[in-house]
Amino acid sequence: MPEINAERVLADLRALKSLASYKTGVHRPTLSPEHVASLKWLEGELKAIGHETKIDGIANVFGIAPVAGKKLLGGSHLESQNHAGWLDGPLGVVYALEAARAIAADEAFAGCGVDVVSCCDEEGHFGNFLGSRSAVGEVDDAAVAAAVDRTTGRRLTEALAEAGLAGVPRYQIDPKRYVGFLEAHIEQGDWLVANDLSIGVVSRIVGIRQYRVMFEGFQNHAGTTRMSQRRDAGVALVRLATAIDDSFPTIAGDRTVWTTGRIDLDPGAPSVIPGNAVMVFQMRDPENDVLDRLEKALYKLAETADAKGPCRVRVERTRRTEPAAMAPQFMAALSAAAEVQVPGRHVEMPSGAGHDAMVFSRHMPAGMVFVPSIGGISHHWTENTCDADIVMGARVYVDAASRMLKSR
Amino acid sequence: MPEINAERVLADLRALKSLASYKTGVHRPTLSPEHVASLKWLEGELKAIGHETKIDGIANVFGIAPVAGKKLLGGSHLESQNHAGWLDGPLGVVYALEAARAIAADEAFAGCGVDVVSCCDEEGHFGNFLGSRSAVGEVDDAAVAAAVDRTTGRRLTEALAEAGLAGVPRYQIDPKRYVGFLEAHIEQGDWLVANDLSIGVVSRIVGIRQYRVMFEGFQNHAGTTRMSQRRDAGVALVRLATAIDDSFPTIAGDRTVWTTGRIDLDPGAPSVIPGNAVMVFQMRDPENDVLDRLEKALYKLAETADAKGPCRVRVERTRRTEPAAMAPQFMAALSAAAEVQVPGRHVEMPSGAGHDAMVFSRHMPAGMVFVPSIGGISHHWTENTCDADIVMGARVYVDAASRMLKSR
Repeated sequence: MPEINAERVLADLRALKSLASYKTGVHRPTLSPEHVASLKWLEGELKAIGHETKIDGIANVFGIAPVAGKKLLGGSHLESQNHAGWLDGPLGVVYALEAARAIAADEAFAGCGVDVVSCCDEEGHFGNFLGSRSAVGEVDDAAVAAAVDRTTGRRLTEALAEAGLAGVPRYQIDPKRYVGFLEAHIEQGDWLVANDLSIGVVSRIVGIRQYRVMFEGFQNHAGTTRMSQRRDAGVALVRLATAIDDSFPTIAGDRTVWTTGRIDLDPGAPSVIPGNAVMVFQMRDPENDVLDRLEKALYKLAETADAKGPCRVRVERTRRTEPAAMAPQFMAALSAAAEVQVPGRHVEMPSGAGHDAMVFSRHMPAGMVFVPSIGGISHHWTENTCDADIVMGARVYVDAASRMLKSR
Repeated sequence: MPEINAERVLADLRALKSLASYKTGVHRPTLSPEHVASLKWLEGELKAIGHETKIDGIANVFGIAPVAGKKLLGGSHLESQNHAGWLDGPLGVVYALEAARAIAADEAFAGCGVDVVSCCDEEGHFGNFLGSRSAVGEVDDAAVAAAVDRTTGRRLTEALAEAGLAGVPRYQIDPKRYVGFLEAHIEQGDWLVANDLSIGVVSRIVGIRQYRVMFEGFQNHAGTTRMSQRRDAGVALVRLATAIDDSFPTIAGDRTVWTTGRIDLDPGAPSVIPGNAVMVFQMRDPENDVLDRLEKALYKLAETADAKGPCRVRVERTRRTEPAAMAPQFMAALSAAAEVQVPGRHVEMPSGAGHDAMVFSRHMPAGMVFVPSIGGISHHWTENTCDADIVMGARVYVDAASRMLKSR
């Protein structure tokens, strides 16, 4: 296999961390100055190995290998959730960068190459996988114009303009150029650690369904309105959320997860009975039939609450991402590479998180590999992976990439 | 009794509304430009009747009658809750203004007078009754310096400076100057309307206790963290809120009300398990022993949840306002005045809302009178009272004020 430079991989990851440090993690929301700095850092590294580069009109970074033979597309994302982990995203970008370097330096792979992509906003500050979906032609200009940062309210178009990307066209890849797309990522869960394993070969990526559940009561004074006269939207909300948590365990699948990530009471003042309330509810499972069953149960709970009163309850599905299967040839290449590095300590597993590989898998073969997360922690600044696992993962990634480039 | 000018009362209230209109109500948060305009309007009206006026360093407006005989202090507040009703506050200020005019114009009351006060921030954008408490010497400079707008985060000192009040001293009344304080207000509930009554003579003002209930779990990825591994602070919160709503009806008093007005999940993102959550919980009752019993129950529920896990639960009391008794001589004067205007259609009742009269009652005799609220609606822009009731209430207020000024 092509040789990797372990120190260089670790140094690159630390360089990216230093551009956006927060405690032991990073704070690098999409199109923050820290994020833009990381995109420019990547562009510099890609230029240094002779790749043609561009940062396009949605802040995707592309590095195109100047070769005529077989090509693989590798990458992940560079922005983070707010105050989150340092490897979530950068690991997959740096592995792809290292694969591009290692393949370019290996005479046995002359003519072959690894193109590198950093997909903007995988973390969804502005939308759902806008970067990778733009790269495969699934995003139109209207969606870009409508997107707003969910934390700050800043428009995506403003943020792009501030990054100097106003008027820059969005670049679309040609899937036929590639043997496929390969992404590495931290597991973000504790399955590998809990089972003393080193590598997860992703078989499927979960489907995601997300809902706004809206409660309409009547706003009134919290001191003068008798309990019997109230239509408190907040009470209706906490009761439905509790009912979900009571009933879902009995009907969910083994792998199902569900989360109420956000609650807003309106007007949100101590002395005012909430007249309106909204909860953002999300569920994930590798299988659509499980999601169908749970969705039905959710609508039923809401209907029952609505019928019982005193508040109106409505459910609106705001997101539906289909489960995605990874390509068998990528799974085989990753398992074979893992067997060389960590014999017997790798496993096929689904991914509970969505990833850009899910988007690319709709247009070309795609593969995905996980390295362990210490304590299973993710989307928190204490997220970490030990150096030995980072280096081991890079070897598995580059070996699998080279196997794909050698394949017929 | 001194004669009131019904058209003038209605015109004054409409003038104040027009300075801050929102739909059929007003939006006049404390020290907003609209609020400051209303203070200047009041100062102008007070000057026009020969009162000495000041807008002091906490944006209280005072109108001092230039007379040597008996004096009553009357008033209420001019700011509103966000997007709320037009009469909540202004009614009591305009009644006091009309009483000042009517008493001044009545030769039978020569030498007597009504001082008028508009107390800043009764609605609690920045704190708890900061204006009236400042007027009776209960607020120190440190409290003013620390106060922050709960909606916008603006500091009170900044807001005062923007209103041109930086460096202006705060004015303190001398309670011995007055036979007492008299406040009129809309009922804000449906007791009068539901019982076909026209006037409520307030006997007691409820005590208020408010709490921050804090839940500490662990922030993690909403896709990759198995349900069994989670410490979801949001789930702990909705379960405790539901438990309160299940158990409080069995232990509360007839008049008790309780409200969760605000919920915050941190970080509040759809794909992140909340690591921390906070709810603002408030309860009110005219009797301290009922509040003591409920407070004990709240702490017990929190302790049980904390012991059961998986999240830590802590309760912090952030506010305790004692129930306040209105002075018997004011209740007698109000009942007598009501019997003249609406024979048999008045009632003694507690107030479920806190009012500035509660603060003044700690320093001098205080009285309070309610007019009906259509539909019992309050703290909402649809709040209203019919013109006939507004005028009837003004007559009761001015008659009661004159009875207090005639008393020995």
